[in-house]
Amino acid sequence: MGSAMNPPPEPHHMPPNPPAVILVRPQLGMNIGAVARAMLNFGLTELRLVAPRDGWPNPEAGPSAAGADAVIEGAVVFDTLADAIADCALTIGTAMTTRDMIRRVTSPAGAVAEMRAAPVTSALVFGPERTGLTREDLLHCHALCTIPSNPDFGSLNLAQAVAVMGYAWVMAHDAPPPSWIVNHEGPAPQADLAGLIAALEAQLADNGWFNPAPGRSESARRMLRNILTRPGFTAAEVQFLRGVVRSLSTPRPGQ
Amino acid sequence: MGSAMNPPPEPHHMPPNPPAVILVRPQLGMNIGAVARAMLNFGLTELRLVAPRDGWPNPEAGPSAAGADAVIEGAVVFDTLADAIADCALTIGTAMTTRDMIRRVTSPAGAVAEMRAAPVTSALVFGPERTGLTREDLLHCHALCTIPSNPDFGSLNLAQAVAVMGYAWVMAHDAPPPSWIVNHEGPAPQADLAGLIAALEAQLADNGWFNPAPGRSESARRMLRNILTRPGFTAAEVQFLRGVVRSLSTPRPGQ
Repeated sequence: MGSAMNPPPEPHHMPPNPPAVILVRPQLGMNIGAVARAMLNFGLTELRLVAPRDGWPNPEAGPSAAGADAVIEGAVVFDTLADAIADCALTIGTAMTTRDMIRRVTSPAGAVAEMRAAPVTSALVFGPERTGLTREDLLHCHALCTIPSNPDFGSLNLAQAVAVMGYAWVMAHDAPPPSWIVNHEGPAPQADLAGLIAALEAQLADNGWFNPAPGRSESARRMLRNILTRPGFTAAEVQFLRGVVRSLSTPRPGQ
Repeated sequence: MGSAMNPPPEPHHMPPNPPAVILVRPQLGMNIGAVARAMLNFGLTELRLVAPRDGWPNPEAGPSAAGADAVIEGAVVFDTLADAIADCALTIGTAMTTRDMIRRVTSPAGAVAEMRAAPVTSALVFGPERTGLTREDLLHCHALCTIPSNPDFGSLNLAQAVAVMGYAWVMAHDAPPPSWIVNHEGPAPQADLAGLIAALEAQLADNGWFNPAPGRSESARRMLRNILTRPGFTAAEVQFLRGVVRSLSTPRPGQ
């Protein structure tokens, strides 16, 4: 049985423009290394770390990276998730529940199909080992992705979750874009949206809107972020809405 | 945003009759525990260990199992892969290459679809961390499953490979059985096939067939196992072939 009778299987071509992988407050260096390995296994190369517990670089990441040194060495650290996704226009957070938010939920295959269809910088966000992403974290995401798993034992190891999403990414390579992607421009970079939210909050604060009831401020801010993040506004739409806010807050001449 | 407005996502129902997971000569207890966790995440519960390097039970498996104690406690140890798959009628080994054998190669989705369609005990086989399954191991498998991955960095962590296969298993739940499964009976239990191969080898040895050239014996045995394993003979077909062997080796009266 010579090799001429048995050509090796075609190497699987890695899809272009892979999403960044963002680990929010990761705890163990060993897990960060294992994530890097899983990423590179599936052609994902851009790792971003938000406030890693034990600082960065972390020598414990090396061994479990098992040769994915380029991913480890290229990792960039951010203070906040907002900073980490500032240039991303499509941010999907992995979570087992919606944490009681109204939020679009997608599957691994759905999430990566969306990322392949949108000609923008995208990010897959993973929470800390013990707790997963908080509601506050998820408010920054356009959609949640839930990995289908055993309802009685659903908590995946961090690197295994990244491996599953990476596999889904590779498998989506030849899949047609899902029909429900109608926004060909793609959502705006997250920094644009952050600007809109900041401007709106500043104006509302000026107007005393956050004041009336104690405790209202935080929930009102959350609601704002949620309803403005969910639609995936384009850059033009965000600009338009900033104009709306500006206009609403500018008294007409003569009033 | 109350929960009434936002019902939790449907719990994903785990498919029935999951395959056994067989780890051949696993090295690190930590990895066996991580495999158990990944298994239970995706509704796989039956773990079989072939000659684990550090013996069994292994206290290092507990922490990384992260609560999948039932899988760890239910693990059964075997001396050889042949023993471990004796009751399995569909055995698929994970491998990055065919190791120069003529063998059917399938994808994760294809492998699990086959397992769902065949009403038999099935097994997913994973090799040791450092080397993967040997050619000898793969000879016992009906097909190979290659996880599509980066051609330049394709070696997956053991538990991450199990997680990917588990995810594929869950995702196959609602998929229609692939059209190329035409063997409704399913392959025979592997012990039946082992009996046929042993009987055939014994007869050939009696006849001096293995003797002529030095080194021929091993490669001839491999070839036999390969061509007899690949087709996935049914139990009836294996019985039929044993009759053929018996008949061929029984001189007709009068000769």
